[in-house]
Amino acid sequence: MVDIYHQIGVNTDTHQIYNAITTLDSLSGWWTNTAGSTEINGKLYFHFNEVKIEMTILELVPDEKVVWQCTEKEGEWKDTIITYDLVKTDGQVFINFSHTKWLQQTSFCSHCNTKWGVCLLSLKDYLEKGKGQPFPDDIQINHIDF
Amino acid sequence: MVDIYHQIGVNTDTHQIYNAITTLDSLSGWWTNTAGSTEINGKLYFHFNEVKIEMTILELVPDEKVVWQCTEKEGEWKDTIITYDLVKTDGQVFINFSHTKWLQQTSFCSHCNTKWGVCLLSLKDYLEKGKGQPFPDDIQINHIDF
Repeated sequence: MVDIYHQIGVNTDTHQIYNAITTLDSLSGWWTNTAGSTEINGKLYFHFNEVKIEMTILELVPDEKVVWQCTEKEGEWKDTIITYDLVKTDGQVFINFSHTKWLQQTSFCSHCNTKWGVCLLSLKDYLEKGKGQPFPDDIQINHIDF
Repeated sequence: MVDIYHQIGVNTDTHQIYNAITTLDSLSGWWTNTAGSTEINGKLYFHFNEVKIEMTILELVPDEKVVWQCTEKEGEWKDTIITYDLVKTDGQVFINFSHTKWLQQTSFCSHCNTKWGVCLLSLKDYLEKGKGQPFPDDIQINHIDF
């Protein structure tokens, strides 16, 4: 299994971060247009033009932790797990993010790792500056359409 | 062992990228103030205020590949390997970057993964726009001094 781990520190409180990763409006404000159910076991749908990615919400611990599983039927994200762990320290909250259980290290996996960093910086801006850079206005890390 | 993999696509040629990762001026222009020897087996020194990181150049394949080993005597980067692989495709060159052989997954490792993404975006800007964001003007991913 291949695992991706990121960490950012955000100057806000855990409740604001939890809201930003558990509500449709907020997810649409920093990652991409989001639809679906925000309840436990609910299915979230993240839209990237004609592509739609399904995630099932596995765990919701208010102001502490969110876990999704990608429940697509095929593709490299199938069955992978995305986790946000919030750790409060003096002066900031760390978001320990992981995207784990990739079957193998691939070029697409490397791409997604870099892209997750960009998405998390967008989340940081959304929380600290009131505006993120969601798809399709996200920072481009290459010159192709993924 | 824990390994970090990133990928960015840059709109330039492999020779320009190779220069940007093998000359002191260029490394100082996108990562941080760099001194030392740029020859094979040479030692490069990357300065971050009072911190200095030593890398030994293990491999130089012109316009294709660069490999460094961190030859610090202690710390989590000790003996880790940093590799830049350049792959030309239609319209861009992919930089497949890795920082491998970490002894374990730690909070600092997660931090460095996110930070490497930021550094590579700085390299992309340096190559495409003529100006990067080297330390200490790099994008901040938290509110502490590392």
